[in-house]
Amino acid sequence: MTTAPSKITIGIAQLNYTVGDLSGNAEKILAVAQKAADSGVDLLLTSELSLCGYPPRDLLLNPGFIIAIEVELQKLAAKLPRAIAVLVGFVAANPHADDKGHKPLFNSVALLQQGKVQQTFHKRLLPTYDVFDEQRYFEPGNQSDYFQLPGDNPLKIGVTVCEDLWNDEQFWGKRNYTLNPLADLALVNVDLVVNLSASPYSLGKQKMREAMLSHSASRYHLPIIYANQVGGNDDLLFDGSSVAFNREGKTVCRAKSFHTDFITLEFDPEKKELLPAKITPIITSETEQIWLALVLGLQDYAHKCGFQKGLIGLSGGIDSALVAAVATEALGAENIMGILMPSPYSSDHSVTDAEALVKNLGIKSEKLPIEPAMKAYDAILEPLFAGTEFGIAEENIQARIRGNLLMAIANKFGYLLLSTGNKSEMAVGYCTLYGDMSGGFSVIADVPKTKVFAICQWLNRNQELIPANIIAKPPSAELKPNQTDQDSLPPYDILDDILHRIIVENQSISQISEAGHDLETVQKVMKMLSRAEFKRRQSPPGLKITERAFGTGWRMPIASNWTRS
Amino acid sequence: MTTAPSKITIGIAQLNYTVGDLSGNAEKILAVAQKAADSGVDLLLTSELSLCGYPPRDLLLNPGFIIAIEVELQKLAAKLPRAIAVLVGFVAANPHADDKGHKPLFNSVALLQQGKVQQTFHKRLLPTYDVFDEQRYFEPGNQSDYFQLPGDNPLKIGVTVCEDLWNDEQFWGKRNYTLNPLADLALVNVDLVVNLSASPYSLGKQKMREAMLSHSASRYHLPIIYANQVGGNDDLLFDGSSVAFNREGKTVCRAKSFHTDFITLEFDPEKKELLPAKITPIITSETEQIWLALVLGLQDYAHKCGFQKGLIGLSGGIDSALVAAVATEALGAENIMGILMPSPYSSDHSVTDAEALVKNLGIKSEKLPIEPAMKAYDAILEPLFAGTEFGIAEENIQARIRGNLLMAIANKFGYLLLSTGNKSEMAVGYCTLYGDMSGGFSVIADVPKTKVFAICQWLNRNQELIPANIIAKPPSAELKPNQTDQDSLPPYDILDDILHRIIVENQSISQISEAGHDLETVQKVMKMLSRAEFKRRQSPPGLKITERAFGTGWRMPIASNWTRS
Repeated sequence: MTTAPSKITIGIAQLNYTVGDLSGNAEKILAVAQKAADSGVDLLLTSELSLCGYPPRDLLLNPGFIIAIEVELQKLAAKLPRAIAVLVGFVAANPHADDKGHKPLFNSVALLQQGKVQQTFHKRLLPTYDVFDEQRYFEPGNQSDYFQLPGDNPLKIGVTVCEDLWNDEQFWGKRNYTLNPLADLALVNVDLVVNLSASPYSLGKQKMREAMLSHSASRYHLPIIYANQVGGNDDLLFDGSSVAFNREGKTVCRAKSFHTDFITLEFDPEKKELLPAKITPIITSETEQIWLALVLGLQDYAHKCGFQKGLIGLSGGIDSALVAAVATEALGAENIMGILMPSPYSSDHSVTDAEALVKNLGIKSEKLPIEPAMKAYDAILEPLFAGTEFGIAEENIQARIRGNLLMAIANKFGYLLLSTGNKSEMAVGYCTLYGDMSGGFSVIADVPKTKVFAICQWLNRNQELIPANIIAKPPSAELKPNQTDQDSLPPYDILDDILHRIIVENQSISQISEAGHDLETVQKVMKMLSRAEFKRRQSPPGLKITERAFGTGWRMPIASNWTRS
Repeated sequence: MTTAPSKITIGIAQLNYTVGDLSGNAEKILAVAQKAADSGVDLLLTSELSLCGYPPRDLLLNPGFIIAIEVELQKLAAKLPRAIAVLVGFVAANPHADDKGHKPLFNSVALLQQGKVQQTFHKRLLPTYDVFDEQRYFEPGNQSDYFQLPGDNPLKIGVTVCEDLWNDEQFWGKRNYTLNPLADLALVNVDLVVNLSASPYSLGKQKMREAMLSHSASRYHLPIIYANQVGGNDDLLFDGSSVAFNREGKTVCRAKSFHTDFITLEFDPEKKELLPAKITPIITSETEQIWLALVLGLQDYAHKCGFQKGLIGLSGGIDSALVAAVATEALGAENIMGILMPSPYSSDHSVTDAEALVKNLGIKSEKLPIEPAMKAYDAILEPLFAGTEFGIAEENIQARIRGNLLMAIANKFGYLLLSTGNKSEMAVGYCTLYGDMSGGFSVIADVPKTKVFAICQWLNRNQELIPANIIAKPPSAELKPNQTDQDSLPPYDILDDILHRIIVENQSISQISEAGHDLETVQKVMKMLSRAEFKRRQSPPGLKITERAFGTGWRMPIASNWTRS
């Protein structure tokens, strides 16, 4: 007569890693592992490439980096408590690359146990689209494998890495890859599948992930635990939201979104099932999701780059108001400086609205009127510009004076300058290179203008944070008298819908026009988008929050000539 | 008794395509095909993706673009002379992508003949490293194939695309890919292999290409014709230099480098051999190669973006002098405007040297002293800066005043502003974002400072083009009194060697130090390189001329923390 095998306790370490900070990342894993071991966790999951942080990009091309990862992995294995097994994401060298003509690395997971690397697993499906470049570095693993915990427990735990689970052709209605690691694991009768992930946030993605994972769990009658990274790394924001599904596809546990977290759940070997545990509710409000993403993304970019303080040019408009609010939440009001730089074309309300914002947020501010500099440029350029009409050149001079002042203050006092352009502007080039585009980080670069309004309204749900007039007044660059955005652009609700169709849906002009938009407007927007490519190429990194952002996932030629029809 | 099969005449159309300009590219192919047919050519080769230009990048994600290519291909086939067969590079849809989990496109070649697409071939080896992203878009072809010309000639012509020939493990000492298309074609006894290529230039690459192709030709006893694209597309410059090798690996014909060309050669079916034809000499001087690359790269970027005129800030230093010389050659002296913007920190020679350069090049110039603007900024910033010391912030203000003036002039009169930073500066961040980094195109961004000197000396080989004092004087940013570059940087010969080892060779600090460099200097350079990542991210596109440039082939995280050892 045998005793029933005891329940297995599994922990998810949902951590915020810095790319390349091997010892720092290892320390974070170690700290959670110690806590987990103390509370009886048998198996701890971290996320994809947890040791080096995701995405390491071309750091992977340095042989010294790969060696350093291997060294750090061994050190971590030796330091971990003996009572716990830990799955850690790392980069493994591919010893047969040169003989076989393969890529030199694997995107791998190590099972650390009893002071050693006991087993390794290689990612098989390598995303190479949008922001992902995995085939640039990695060879796919050639099999899906599992491990068994020590002792008399025969539990088989299949290991997958992120994209490995993204090929359920029933869910997608098509195959994304030739192979299906989950189907392979089902064939070898694993009891549980774990997935170490680094899945970047985009609007509504968690809903889609959960629908997919739930479908796969119930299809293969396999419990699945998905452990995601959290935090911002350059333009990518990882939202955490680690989640587990039982064999029926029911959610049994979920970690926080946009925060580090440590959660535990139990697997019952008799029932071959994950037992219900703590389920943190999903954040259903799109507006709240974006807000939390922006705050975390900015906080991480600033802190990981060594900045404590943020600087913002406050125009009195809604974009800089939102960026100031995000920055205040991310870095603390005491660390934020707003600079008001009125020109003779600025309306009175641009100053009073900005001042009201400063007061509401409790940030510091300075007012620096730019007219003396405008006059200096006019005088210097007089020999060349005499007799020409005021136009774009003169408008841009003002924006660039402001950019120069902001950069000077940032350089002098060690601020991170935050640029304030939204996605709609960046798309059509309604922004000045080296002017309002200046900065180290472009906080709302992937937030369409209509969503900028929505977030500001949401921020004011309890009390007025963004002064009402900033939301109510018509948007204006105020670079010439009585200017408004709508002199040059279609209304933002129309513009944003057209842009979404072009950028995310890859629709043609005729498709967009057939969907009800004015043909001439669509053609104009398409042309503006294409002509602004050179500006976007020089923009600071901005946080991706939609399915497709103007960042690493947008690779357009500049000197090209294709007119969509 | 049969008559001996007649000789086959093959033409290479080495053309300069604009990315996305489908009808323009088709017209160029048609024009050469007509000329070729008239002169008795049987088979005309174009280059990889000739119809859409290489690299089309994310234009490929638009279904409308793929349809437009297909339409243009059919139109071209119908228009071509009936007497000639033409190989054209195009993008083919992959009809089974969704069933099989494959990528949706092929990088293909069409055999156009008798008014129709007779046969298609798909590229099998898809480069996904450095500047190449082909696995982002394309599925590899699953076989290597050949075609036969009509009539009684049994000649088998194997078709390959660019990278397909880059896997000779004997030549490389390792396999780069699992498959070898050339070996596969040898197995089916082809008589001749053609390779449609879009191989970007880098220093010394032609020598390496020819060594490789010659080795492969003699190894497989197969004549090889390599047809390359020519011209600049954004940061990539294609150098042409199309070349053919007989079965013994001997060069039998070569087209011009850095120029469009049309050349013909004959294949003798009896001898199964390519016959000697015109061999344009290779350009052996590195300095001349870089010069020609810069001129063509700038010319194409400007013209393909619709600019006729170039604008340059002339500091009196060697970088802006070289850029002015390149621009003069590329766009014509009458189209170049140099702007002198002395400050109180400028030396007298900075103005006199720049004036001498203007005279030597025969370009236009204006002098705009910037002191009034400096004073305006000082006054505006006084409330914040009072009591602080003159430093980087004040130095940068000057550079950004110049950037603002240049952009204003560019905006007003429709110039393309050329930024003048060299690779050494860009590497260590010895440049001002939104200041001297401003511009639409960064002409010498991949030229190390030591090579800037070498090119200027070479330019003066017959007569003084670059004033001697510009070459002789110690480099200085002149942003504070008596400043020279060597106050902040190691001597350029040392710096450039260290940078090459880091950037191109991926060496570790200890390797570089063991090679004889001062450890502290290496550590300092490494740190400067890493800290300047945020600047490079916002730089204009620059022309790649080395094995690894800070452009699409350099994908480093910014907010990261890896210290090399």
